[in-house]
Amino acid sequence: MKRNIYIKNTPLKEAIINFNQALDEIGYFCPAEEWIEVSQCLGRVTSRPVLSRRSSPHYQASAMDGIAVRAKDTFAASETTPVRLAENQYLMVDTGDYVPPPFDAVIMIEDVNFFGNEAEIVKAAVPWQHIRSVGEDLVAQDMIVPSSYRLGSYEIAALISAAVERVAVFRQPVVGIIPTGTELVASASPDMEPGKIVESNSYMLEALCREWGARAIRHSIVEDDWDKLLQAVREVEPQCDLLVICSGSSAGREDYTSAVIDHLGTVLNHGLAIKPGKPAILGLIGGKPVIGVPGYPVSAQLVFTLFAKPLLYRKQGLVVPDDEKLPCQLTRKIASPMGVDEFVYVNVAKIQDRYLAYPLSRGAGVSSNLVRADGVITISSGQEGVNAGDYSQVALMRPRHEIELSLVCMGSHDLCIDLLIDYLRRRHRIRLLSTNVGSMGGLMALMRGETHMAGIHLLDTERGSYNVGYVQRYLQGKNWRLINAVRRQQGLIVKKGNPLNITSLEDLLNPEIRFINRQKGAGTRILLDYLLKQAGLDPTAINGYNREEYTHLAVAAAVKNDACDCGLGIMASARVMDLDFIPLAEEQYDLCILTDLMPVDWVDRLMDALSSAEFRENLRKMGGYNLELSGQIIAASLL
Amino acid sequence: MKRNIYIKNTPLKEAIINFNQALDEIGYFCPAEEWIEVSQCLGRVTSRPVLSRRSSPHYQASAMDGIAVRAKDTFAASETTPVRLAENQYLMVDTGDYVPPPFDAVIMIEDVNFFGNEAEIVKAAVPWQHIRSVGEDLVAQDMIVPSSYRLGSYEIAALISAAVERVAVFRQPVVGIIPTGTELVASASPDMEPGKIVESNSYMLEALCREWGARAIRHSIVEDDWDKLLQAVREVEPQCDLLVICSGSSAGREDYTSAVIDHLGTVLNHGLAIKPGKPAILGLIGGKPVIGVPGYPVSAQLVFTLFAKPLLYRKQGLVVPDDEKLPCQLTRKIASPMGVDEFVYVNVAKIQDRYLAYPLSRGAGVSSNLVRADGVITISSGQEGVNAGDYSQVALMRPRHEIELSLVCMGSHDLCIDLLIDYLRRRHRIRLLSTNVGSMGGLMALMRGETHMAGIHLLDTERGSYNVGYVQRYLQGKNWRLINAVRRQQGLIVKKGNPLNITSLEDLLNPEIRFINRQKGAGTRILLDYLLKQAGLDPTAINGYNREEYTHLAVAAAVKNDACDCGLGIMASARVMDLDFIPLAEEQYDLCILTDLMPVDWVDRLMDALSSAEFRENLRKMGGYNLELSGQIIAASLL
Repeated sequence: MKRNIYIKNTPLKEAIINFNQALDEIGYFCPAEEWIEVSQCLGRVTSRPVLSRRSSPHYQASAMDGIAVRAKDTFAASETTPVRLAENQYLMVDTGDYVPPPFDAVIMIEDVNFFGNEAEIVKAAVPWQHIRSVGEDLVAQDMIVPSSYRLGSYEIAALISAAVERVAVFRQPVVGIIPTGTELVASASPDMEPGKIVESNSYMLEALCREWGARAIRHSIVEDDWDKLLQAVREVEPQCDLLVICSGSSAGREDYTSAVIDHLGTVLNHGLAIKPGKPAILGLIGGKPVIGVPGYPVSAQLVFTLFAKPLLYRKQGLVVPDDEKLPCQLTRKIASPMGVDEFVYVNVAKIQDRYLAYPLSRGAGVSSNLVRADGVITISSGQEGVNAGDYSQVALMRPRHEIELSLVCMGSHDLCIDLLIDYLRRRHRIRLLSTNVGSMGGLMALMRGETHMAGIHLLDTERGSYNVGYVQRYLQGKNWRLINAVRRQQGLIVKKGNPLNITSLEDLLNPEIRFINRQKGAGTRILLDYLLKQAGLDPTAINGYNREEYTHLAVAAAVKNDACDCGLGIMASARVMDLDFIPLAEEQYDLCILTDLMPVDWVDRLMDALSSAEFRENLRKMGGYNLELSGQIIAASLL
Repeated sequence: MKRNIYIKNTPLKEAIINFNQALDEIGYFCPAEEWIEVSQCLGRVTSRPVLSRRSSPHYQASAMDGIAVRAKDTFAASETTPVRLAENQYLMVDTGDYVPPPFDAVIMIEDVNFFGNEAEIVKAAVPWQHIRSVGEDLVAQDMIVPSSYRLGSYEIAALISAAVERVAVFRQPVVGIIPTGTELVASASPDMEPGKIVESNSYMLEALCREWGARAIRHSIVEDDWDKLLQAVREVEPQCDLLVICSGSSAGREDYTSAVIDHLGTVLNHGLAIKPGKPAILGLIGGKPVIGVPGYPVSAQLVFTLFAKPLLYRKQGLVVPDDEKLPCQLTRKIASPMGVDEFVYVNVAKIQDRYLAYPLSRGAGVSSNLVRADGVITISSGQEGVNAGDYSQVALMRPRHEIELSLVCMGSHDLCIDLLIDYLRRRHRIRLLSTNVGSMGGLMALMRGETHMAGIHLLDTERGSYNVGYVQRYLQGKNWRLINAVRRQQGLIVKKGNPLNITSLEDLLNPEIRFINRQKGAGTRILLDYLLKQAGLDPTAINGYNREEYTHLAVAAAVKNDACDCGLGIMASARVMDLDFIPLAEEQYDLCILTDLMPVDWVDRLMDALSSAEFRENLRKMGGYNLELSGQIIAASLL
């Protein structure tokens, strides 16, 4: 196969219009209906109006427990002139019972006194009182639901009650999914070769199909082989209404997919002016649409949602409901190339009365972004980006009430944050959103009112103490509190068994030892610089001083996977990765909150979590933590 | 069984607290978890945090198609001093490929020129550029999701990619449902006896369980027999986490259920201060909660939602998400007894900028209300009701965007309205909400700005013409248009074969002939009065003149089911019920719109629907319609 580096970048709108036109031309959306039993119809969409086949109730029914009477027999009754009805002048009825002629009214049992077989009443009955008329609920031929209506729990009850046994519904569209790529493996194993990738996209797309009312057929992984891909497409295509080929992630790979589509049908479009998702392919095979989705999970999700979702809804006689839109202020600038519609995934939280959008990192390979994201911002092709502080419409991916329960924590990371996320969610329904921007980044975010709290471990190198000095300086004039989360061991994380025999910072000067550093502003980096300075060591002499990771676990993972030999981090992260650890210092990791930004009950719940037996026990298991001060207020502003 | 007329009315809050306390005391909510395959976990709720079992990528991966290089080999490169790398100094890589040591940077293929086996570059590479670091997506031991988290499509992909094979989730609660009542039949038949009721509640509750993440076991109908009910409960109870007995609708019946619960366990509560749903029962059998839900569908839905929903969510480690609340202005006064929490089902629409709530009829037996309702208003026990025009919080049962597409039509009913509902929904996503309040009621609603349009057929008895005179009088000073929907035959609807040989209005004076009238303000009633007056006949001499139905179909159904012998209505309703018809007059049924209230594109779509071939063809099939003027503007205000 020849290798095409450049593919055409078709504007999104144009591609959507062309795709739909091509499908309309071949009569693809001509509705296919089927008749199904009412008991099977939950969640299905009607293709015709459903009319009641009977009236309900189908008889004059008592609406009360009481006696049925002829109203005219009661007209004389009053408190002072009670009327007694003989046994043949009334009928005992329960709610729902038939009221046969000539009875034309019901009197509640509470308003009747019985004397032997005689019933005494003290108030005249109005004709037809407490009688449900025929068809009060449903009249035969009444329309219960129109067409293009998704049937839910209440509709099922109404249909059964209306004697409807079978319902005409749109046929459930079937999606055939073929994952391709020699680098793909069906499941992860501990000894996976470098370059191998776990195939997970087909499962995500299958689950999305279910959410959208469609059914999916997942083919096994097809390696990069012309004949095998051809065979897979020929096998799956006749079974489905939409074919999806999950291409590998490289340009070469998509050309391959595109050539197969071209061979068996028509390629309508290869390449879109969108980011991520640029290498998408649209085509037709055998009168059916084919979508070639890129290999990166975020690209795959986006392309599938943009093209397959509306198609599958329309096949079911529906249109895609609009996502809820929320105008949010961006917390940082997003640059975006002109000529490309860019989709930026964000977290969303409400701080005081402001809705804030926090852009997630834009790597299309970061599948965890889809789990984290609360919504997506579209930067249209005519815009060069959005500035920090600007308002953007966020299309929400989560219900708004969940988003409004978000407690934002920016700053340095510690493993105890994961414990807090779990505890606060489980006990208090609070969704703790944690972003690793380093301790200084956390303080800056507090200053801008963009976080409820910040996790910090900032060594005041002059005083030799932690955090208080920094907070006093940067949060002057604000109402702050400093709550201790943990004290913890910092040290060198090295391979199991310490094969390079690293014992102190001095060893890092050996150019054979590959170090990995933390990002600028990270408390751990500040600590490293302090320790190096104290020891009189030159940072620039360290191999890898400029290579950065963003969390303790990422540093430990780099050591574990031989991306480096050594890094500075906390003992717990070395322990969970089964690595060796050389302790260098104990430091204090505090949570700094601004009381004006954080609801007071959330503060209480946070303190509760930090003081809980569960929290302490879990940290003790991890090792390297000192919990003497956990949950205690270390310092507070004087305001 | 003794018959207890009075049951205790426990306040709702008290009943909820007591029920939960009793369940807490027996440790009912102690979470039950199970481990399931990732492929089975869509929609399930985690019972523990899920940690990544690997880093992804687990190797240094190229983020581009290009060449892997040692960055230091490229430092001298510039536009003027290109650098050529020998074959052993670089490696061709595709996106996702492994970048092995000693390579530490990737250069995009677009920036490389090849000369034989040599690669020429014109720009220095920064160390680690275009290389995805180990764990960029996920680091081993990273928390992917916390506990109490419902797993969706994206989570499944992330779990597979994180080498997670099995997940701990809360066990799906099982609900046992036993419908009881000798009057119940499993399915409707044309020759159902009076007093028989189709059992549909168990299907509704089963579907609700599914929506809430639980599974249901439905028992067959149990007749009112002590031993049989006892046996059914003993059979179902061991298989489920929650037992629901759907009682019949009478007071006698609930006592029966309550006695069985008392015999096998404990009755915690019988009777609630709520409306509907008063006769609910709460109890315990064998360490499991039992709910006795009343027989009326609306009561059953309400009691089941109030008590079973939070319980089933909590069993899965979740709390019930709050319904979206919308403050709406009530279109009519609702009186409500003190001391009772009343739940009123409403339709909701937006007219101009006002959100309006239209209370549905309050019969608990009206199961179609559940299909129709958009939300529910709670009138708390301390309130005596809500006045028309007051704002009330509506808890929405439908997404807001659907509600905002509501076109309101109040007034007289015609079968063509059902056709419009279907057409507008299918073609234009507009949800036409139709309420039968009679022609005059429709005009009044237009005056108050509570409807977009009104269906009217008002005979101006002085001029002998339809609608224009009324509209000019009542909508003076407003921008109105009168659009003809249909002209139609009105006449006497009588039994098939006309057994009583009714031929004219005079025959109605025979006291043996049971007539049924339409409600006051209905155009058909005005027509009747006009025709009676013209013929010099006395309305009060007619047997049933004061007995009212609200639609043409309801009148026809009453004749069909022998609730009366004759009524006045349109030919189409006689035809769909297979009844005979004696024509008396042709009348004009118009839609009156206020152009200030109705979006202009909705007006266009309405005219389009009325003029469509589909609309005309369907009406012709029904019979009795003259469509010459359909879709034409008959008159308009001069403003």
